[in-house]
Amino acid sequence: MESNNKSETAGKVLRCKAAISRIPGEPLVIEDIEVDPPKAWEIRIKIICTSLCHTDITFWKMKAGPAAVFPRIFGHEAVGVVESVGEHVEEFTVGDTVLPVFLPNCKECSDCKSQKSNICSIFENNFSPEMPRDGTSRFKDMNGEILHHFLWVSSFSEYTVVDVTHAVKITPEIPVDKACLLGCGVSTGIGAAWKVAEVEEGSTVAIFGLGPVGLAVAEGARQRGALKIIAVDLNLEKFDIGKKFGVTDFVNPETCGEKSVSEVIKELTNGGADYCFECIGLASLMQEAFLSSRKGWGKTVILGVEMHGAQVSLNPYEFLRGRSVIGSLFGGVKPKSDIPVFAKKYLDNELRLDEFISHELSFQDINKAFELHQEGKSLRCIIWMDR
Amino acid sequence: MESNNKSETAGKVLRCKAAISRIPGEPLVIEDIEVDPPKAWEIRIKIICTSLCHTDITFWKMKAGPAAVFPRIFGHEAVGVVESVGEHVEEFTVGDTVLPVFLPNCKECSDCKSQKSNICSIFENNFSPEMPRDGTSRFKDMNGEILHHFLWVSSFSEYTVVDVTHAVKITPEIPVDKACLLGCGVSTGIGAAWKVAEVEEGSTVAIFGLGPVGLAVAEGARQRGALKIIAVDLNLEKFDIGKKFGVTDFVNPETCGEKSVSEVIKELTNGGADYCFECIGLASLMQEAFLSSRKGWGKTVILGVEMHGAQVSLNPYEFLRGRSVIGSLFGGVKPKSDIPVFAKKYLDNELRLDEFISHELSFQDINKAFELHQEGKSLRCIIWMDR
Repeated sequence: MESNNKSETAGKVLRCKAAISRIPGEPLVIEDIEVDPPKAWEIRIKIICTSLCHTDITFWKMKAGPAAVFPRIFGHEAVGVVESVGEHVEEFTVGDTVLPVFLPNCKECSDCKSQKSNICSIFENNFSPEMPRDGTSRFKDMNGEILHHFLWVSSFSEYTVVDVTHAVKITPEIPVDKACLLGCGVSTGIGAAWKVAEVEEGSTVAIFGLGPVGLAVAEGARQRGALKIIAVDLNLEKFDIGKKFGVTDFVNPETCGEKSVSEVIKELTNGGADYCFECIGLASLMQEAFLSSRKGWGKTVILGVEMHGAQVSLNPYEFLRGRSVIGSLFGGVKPKSDIPVFAKKYLDNELRLDEFISHELSFQDINKAFELHQEGKSLRCIIWMDR
Repeated sequence: MESNNKSETAGKVLRCKAAISRIPGEPLVIEDIEVDPPKAWEIRIKIICTSLCHTDITFWKMKAGPAAVFPRIFGHEAVGVVESVGEHVEEFTVGDTVLPVFLPNCKECSDCKSQKSNICSIFENNFSPEMPRDGTSRFKDMNGEILHHFLWVSSFSEYTVVDVTHAVKITPEIPVDKACLLGCGVSTGIGAAWKVAEVEEGSTVAIFGLGPVGLAVAEGARQRGALKIIAVDLNLEKFDIGKKFGVTDFVNPETCGEKSVSEVIKELTNGGADYCFECIGLASLMQEAFLSSRKGWGKTVILGVEMHGAQVSLNPYEFLRGRSVIGSLFGGVKPKSDIPVFAKKYLDNELRLDEFISHELSFQDINKAFELHQEGKSLRCIIWMDR
C-alpha cells in the first residue's frame, strides 16, 4: 500500500474476533467485538501474530485490587500492519509493519530526549488501563459492553488500536514471529545486558532465574563476549536450553549444600560476578544477586517485579566496596530507537531469536498457550491470528 | 636533596615526638617514641602537617571490639617529605613531597588496573592495623611498648613509616596544608561527584549531611556546573559555609512540616534530583536519598559508613523506574592517579580548597583539634608539626 492510501475500513467501526478474559484465571473466550476507528494520534493495527508473556498471566489471574479490570483483552507482544491512522499521525502510514509496545516513547519528554532513561513521562503519569490520551476504550462486545485495554496494546484481538507513542515501525524484512518476541520479555533481557549492565567481552555474568527474560540476558551477554555466564535456577532442565544462549555454568540453590548461592558464585568467578541479574522478582534473590557481585565494580540489575511488594534489604558496607544496584524496566530499551537495532542484529545473524520460540498455535487455541505457560513448558508461544 | 641521596638518619631508628592515644576517648599524650627504619617497599616520612578526620574520632572513641586497638597513633590526612626509603623502593626518593593515604594503590591488581574500581586488592585482603606486608608495627614508646598504626598512615607523629602502595607523590608547588586536605574527606566528596556520580552541567544534586565530605561533594558539583545543589542538614548555620561551595538550597528535615525530605526535594527539582549523596552513615537517610532521586536516571551515592551496622531497605519498584544506588569508598578515587589531578585543579583555580581550613594549630595543641571537631566547630583543622 502506498503512503496515505486509505483502507476501505478506515474511519469505520470494525467487527473482528478477540479473545476476551471475562473472569480472572478462567479460559479466554473468543467472541466478535467492535473496534472503534483510531482517534487523533492513534493507529489501528491488524495483528498478524502475538505471543504470551508472564505479565499477561499475572494480570489475568488477578482477582482483586485496582489492576483487576475485567472484561479485558490481554496480549502485549505482537506484530501487525497498520490498517488505518487517526488525525495528526505522521510517523505511520497504512500498510506499515509495526510492533505495538507497552512502554511509550513520545520522543519529546526529557526522559525520551535523554540517552540515560527509557521511562517516557507518558508512562510515568498514566494510570489508566485504557487509551493514554483520553482514558477511554476502543473495544466493545456485541452487547455494547466496554472491553478494557491491557498495557496499551491488547493484542489478543484481530484488530487493536494503540497510541502512536506505543508503536514502533519495523522492517518488513524480519520474520514477524521473530520481531514479535522483541515486544517485551526478550528485549528486556537483551537490553538489560547491553544497555543497563553494558556487559563487556571477557566479563562474568550471573543470572537469577532462567525464564525467557533470563535467557535473553544470557543471549545479550553471549553476544557481547562474556567469558562465564552462570545461571541460577531450581530447574536443572533449563540448563540445556540455557546452553543455546551461552550459559556456561548452572547453580541449583537446592544442591549448594552448606554454601550460599553467592558463595558458590564467588568461587566460580574468583570473587564475584561482574554483572548479576535478578529476573524473578523476589527480594531475597535480589539480595543474593547483590552479594554475588564483585567488589570494585559489581553491578546488580533488577529486572523482576517483586511479587510480594517486599522491600529489598541490602548491606551498606557492601555498597561501599564499589558495588551498585540498578533497576531496569524493559531493559532500558527505548522502543523506537532500540527495537529496530535489535531487529537488524537478528538479520545480521548477531542475535539469536529463533530459539525462544518453543510453540506455535492458531488464535482459536489461545488457551493452550496459557496452559503451556503455566506448566512451565513454553518459552515463547507464537499465536497466529490467521491460522 | 637529590635523588638517591641518603639522609643521615637513613637505616637508623629515629627518636621523635608523637601524639599517642592510650585510652579510648581520652586526650592524646605527646611523648617521645622510636620509629624503625623502613623495610622493603616502605618509606619513612617526616610529617609537615596533618589534619583531623571524623574517622580518627570514631576509632579513638572505640572502647571495645577488634578495631579498638591501643596504644595507637592516629592521623591519616597529612603531607610530608620522604626521609628515607627501604629496599626495592623506586617510586619515591629522599626529599619527595608525599601524601600518605589510607587506601592503597598497588597498580598491579585487577582493581588497580581497571578504570572502574579503586578498591585495591591489598586493601580488601588486609585485616591488620599494622604495616600491610608483615603485619608488624614500626613504632615503640620509650618503654619498648608497641604503638599501633592507624589506617596504615599514623600521621600524628613527627615521623611515620608507610608502604609504597599507601603514598602519593605530589607536586611541591601546592601549599602543603591544601594538599593535606586531599588525603581523605575532601577527596572523598570531590571524587564522589566527579568519578562516581559524574555530575554534569545543569544537573540537580541533593547532599544529605553538610560536613566536610558533603561540602566537598558540593564543591565537586559546583565545579562541574550543577544547576541546583540542595543541602539537607539539621544545622541551618551550615548553609552559610555551604554557599561558598555552591550550595543553592537548604532543607532542614525538622522544618519540612508534614512533608518528607524527599517530597520537598522532588518539589525543588521538578521530580527528583539527578544525583543524591548520603554523607552521614544512616540507613534511614540512604533510603530518603534514594526516594529523592529522579526516576529514569537518578543515582544515589552512599558515602557514609552506616553507624549502627543497619541494612538499608529499598523499594525494588523504585529501582525499576531506572534509579540506581552505588557505594563509594574514598569517592572512587585512585590515589596515585587522581590526587595529583585534584592538586592540579587547585593550582589552576578550578577547585576550592582554602575554604575547608577552618582552624590551624601547632602539634602540641592537637587535643584542641579533637575538641573543636566534637563541638562541631571545625571543618578541617590543620595541625603543623613544626610550629
